[in-house]
Amino acid sequence: MNTDIEIARAAHKRPIAEIAAKLGIGAQDILPYGHDKAKISRDFIAGLAGRPQGRLILVTAINPTPAGEGKTTTTVGLGDALNRLGAKATICIREASLGPNFGMKGGAAGGGRAQVIPMEDMNLHFTGDFHAITSAHNLLSAMLDNHLHWGNALDIDPRRITWRRVLDMNDRVLRDVVLGLGPGNGVPRESGFDITVASEVMAILCLSRDLDDLQDRLGRIVVAQTRDGRPVTARDLQADGAMTVLLRDALQPNLVQTLENNPALVHGGPFANIAHGCNSVIATTTALHLSDYVVTEAGFGADLGAEKFLNIKCRKAGLTPAAVVLVATVRALKMNGGVARSDLAVENIGAVQAGAANLSRHIRNLRKHGLPLVVAINHFATDTRAEIAAIEAAARALGVQAITARHWEMGGAGAEDLAREVMRLAAQPHDFRLTYPDDMPLRDKIETICTRIYGAEGAQFPPAVLARLEAWQAEYGSLPVCMAKTQYSFSANPDWLGAPEGFTIPVREVRLAAGAGFVVAICGDIMTMPGLPRDPAANRIRLGAGGHVEGLF
Amino acid sequence: MNTDIEIARAAHKRPIAEIAAKLGIGAQDILPYGHDKAKISRDFIAGLAGRPQGRLILVTAINPTPAGEGKTTTTVGLGDALNRLGAKATICIREASLGPNFGMKGGAAGGGRAQVIPMEDMNLHFTGDFHAITSAHNLLSAMLDNHLHWGNALDIDPRRITWRRVLDMNDRVLRDVVLGLGPGNGVPRESGFDITVASEVMAILCLSRDLDDLQDRLGRIVVAQTRDGRPVTARDLQADGAMTVLLRDALQPNLVQTLENNPALVHGGPFANIAHGCNSVIATTTALHLSDYVVTEAGFGADLGAEKFLNIKCRKAGLTPAAVVLVATVRALKMNGGVARSDLAVENIGAVQAGAANLSRHIRNLRKHGLPLVVAINHFATDTRAEIAAIEAAARALGVQAITARHWEMGGAGAEDLAREVMRLAAQPHDFRLTYPDDMPLRDKIETICTRIYGAEGAQFPPAVLARLEAWQAEYGSLPVCMAKTQYSFSANPDWLGAPEGFTIPVREVRLAAGAGFVVAICGDIMTMPGLPRDPAANRIRLGAGGHVEGLF
Repeated sequence: MNTDIEIARAAHKRPIAEIAAKLGIGAQDILPYGHDKAKISRDFIAGLAGRPQGRLILVTAINPTPAGEGKTTTTVGLGDALNRLGAKATICIREASLGPNFGMKGGAAGGGRAQVIPMEDMNLHFTGDFHAITSAHNLLSAMLDNHLHWGNALDIDPRRITWRRVLDMNDRVLRDVVLGLGPGNGVPRESGFDITVASEVMAILCLSRDLDDLQDRLGRIVVAQTRDGRPVTARDLQADGAMTVLLRDALQPNLVQTLENNPALVHGGPFANIAHGCNSVIATTTALHLSDYVVTEAGFGADLGAEKFLNIKCRKAGLTPAAVVLVATVRALKMNGGVARSDLAVENIGAVQAGAANLSRHIRNLRKHGLPLVVAINHFATDTRAEIAAIEAAARALGVQAITARHWEMGGAGAEDLAREVMRLAAQPHDFRLTYPDDMPLRDKIETICTRIYGAEGAQFPPAVLARLEAWQAEYGSLPVCMAKTQYSFSANPDWLGAPEGFTIPVREVRLAAGAGFVVAICGDIMTMPGLPRDPAANRIRLGAGGHVEGLF
Repeated sequence: MNTDIEIARAAHKRPIAEIAAKLGIGAQDILPYGHDKAKISRDFIAGLAGRPQGRLILVTAINPTPAGEGKTTTTVGLGDALNRLGAKATICIREASLGPNFGMKGGAAGGGRAQVIPMEDMNLHFTGDFHAITSAHNLLSAMLDNHLHWGNALDIDPRRITWRRVLDMNDRVLRDVVLGLGPGNGVPRESGFDITVASEVMAILCLSRDLDDLQDRLGRIVVAQTRDGRPVTARDLQADGAMTVLLRDALQPNLVQTLENNPALVHGGPFANIAHGCNSVIATTTALHLSDYVVTEAGFGADLGAEKFLNIKCRKAGLTPAAVVLVATVRALKMNGGVARSDLAVENIGAVQAGAANLSRHIRNLRKHGLPLVVAINHFATDTRAEIAAIEAAARALGVQAITARHWEMGGAGAEDLAREVMRLAAQPHDFRLTYPDDMPLRDKIETICTRIYGAEGAQFPPAVLARLEAWQAEYGSLPVCMAKTQYSFSANPDWLGAPEGFTIPVREVRLAAGAGFVVAICGDIMTMPGLPRDPAANRIRLGAGGHVEGLF
């Protein structure tokens, strides 16, 4: 079989206006970016209010391993399969970050015959959304330092500024810098840069219902404290209006297509650790108004991705999934069962059974939400019949079907069985429950996630963390929490695969994202500005024959 | 009369495909960005090679004053007037920088009834070109620091790194920073950020013929020296390929329209001091292949703008203007003649005559280039007949016509007399001459510009500057020089208006822009990262009724 990029380049792309027409969007209601990308206009979206909505399908996964679980690929394949079965289905996924492409090879959107295109554009500037977020974020930074420079009327404490700057670039020397050196160049202080996807502005864009909501949220961003301990917001700095102007176009979701010419909305891309890791609310709700089914994914494994999708995005946007697809692979279960990466091609039923403990804990967690569930076994050529049977048995033991899907090899045709089960499940009544209520104290929300979702014995809070949570409780106590933890384990130790027990979760630090509307609990080393490796992909990226990009994939 | 923004919003915009069709560009050969902006495709441009070219008209001006001279307005009005007279005319101007909009009010493209639209988009992200330049520039920065981090195989001297970072933001605390603090965060060193328009990548984009030329130039950028004094280039760091990929789309010129629905190419925007200050070569040559006349402008007054347009852009791109329009206003000549800004509305023929010394020196300079010339008096309501007559007389004394143009009030209809004279001049034979040959030593090129164009008695070179020029002479001696001097005076003192005499030009510093292909001579304080004022425009910028941007203009 050809490589992902060869398949993507050989695709028979349809003009984007044709894809829009499939959703009932006229040519005047899209803003084309070239011939294969478009934004859906704000006015058209405003006109959808009150229209009936389709069914939302969440694709999530077991804990990821280097063997790969294929969450995006399954999202795309399932969407194509639903369309093949005559349903009107749209997929919703995140936009890719530019910077990391120059470190390691860039990520395709999906893989094999289940991809979203145009892949090169989506890995480069796409429609400029992330650049707009970078600009809006850094405008607030510049206005903050400008305020200090011109007399600091708000009495901001320069030692208590939490708002940094961002760039969509892997650039480690920007992590920790001293700004404002030299005469006339502002007030010197220590600060730094994060990568753009880690910006609270990104999370805000992804959670906003419309421009008014966006501006309200931007205004609520807390950037610093005054010398007497009061929070200083973007609204105090009068930055919210100009930031909204910079994000006006970016808030409109992007329409592209799958290899099978079905609609895909690709919009927003918040970090899945210090933020909630899902595509934008506005893309999801727009797609729901235009489709029978909307297939979307959440970042990392279900312990982080699905938990935050449900407890943050769905809670705040009033969304209710109709069914959940939990993706697993034989290879990833083997790694969870203790097999080394070099031995994955060898049949090992015992390891699959051992690794299925990870799958089982995710199944139990998702059922606590009251949602219909199916396990999708994303098929690899090396999988044996007995290994697949071991997964099926583990799922069946919990009353869940496991269905093998071959969309990577066959496109939508390979995921039709999965699609039929999803349609069946989505038609069932369900009883959606969140993990915790709004009015639970912040500390208890964190503790509840650790025990109910991770299977931990509890959470550990240093006194300084407890003090901050208590200080925030009055004003921000009703916010959900956003857990930042390793994606590789239920625990905070990335080496504890499978279904570890007898551990606690250390909460090292908490951060307030008042604009996004959550409190971040940091439970491990979280890197918000990556570096480039010794031999970065950028060394080999160049334009090749036909204007194609070489070295990016 | 309405404000510029009211006129722009009331404009009857035509779909961008219709504007493209006027130039003979089919819908498949443009890449639309929304319905009123498009890029002209690389493949279409490649197919134009060898086609006949129209006539290039340069619009330049006397030294600017706060009273305004209206260079862009005249460029737009003249283009519209040529179209009204039945010629196929395209205008070519620069793109606006995003950052400065948040300091002072944003700049319209033209004014009154002579504007380019969509004005809001052009002052915000437009088609993302500047964001692409920011990314390409900062990728090189990240790869440079990454090289230091991973062992510095090229033996780069960290104290001799000249390549900084850029942001399209007015942010003074970024001018001088210390990077790389903290363990594992690279090699600590002092550096800083410039605004994106000051990036050498911007100048390179604007001077490149095609993608191959772009990549060659990017590869030649000198970023540092080794410990034994050898230059380190972007190619040494293997950054040129990936930078080209980031700029692939940005190299395609942007098509928009005037208020009268005539085509305008708006592409590139290099600083007019440390760079050459003109729109891209690729936009100009593309327009020449598609039009009878191409009207373009150069930054600042003719001493800087026209000099660099001719000696850098025309020299390197093989362009020859067919005629030059020198814009003057009664008000700006009065200020050059010593009148205070508060007294400009009062008739003062003596001051116009005194200020005309500035006009006369520009006329003499432009005639040294062997180019047909007309003076355009950009009309204001307060101008008196006698004041206009004084300008006409000053021009006539040097054998040049001065024609009053009322495009600000009337659109193209107000500039038809000017357009007729331009057509007459452009049909005449001319004998284009550059100010200096390629093989003149760098020092002598600078000296020649100072004496022949500025009217200085000579240039002053500190020993360190002379040493650098001599060190560059062997490898870079054939490059043109790019003068960075105040725009307000022929001299290096912004207060010496009119036609000062008896001065010398101090060359404080020289910088090598080996990729752009010029040596910059810095003759004064040049700010490459602006700051925000005490009460920045950003405080009042917001979305108003109908999604319009308020406070930006």
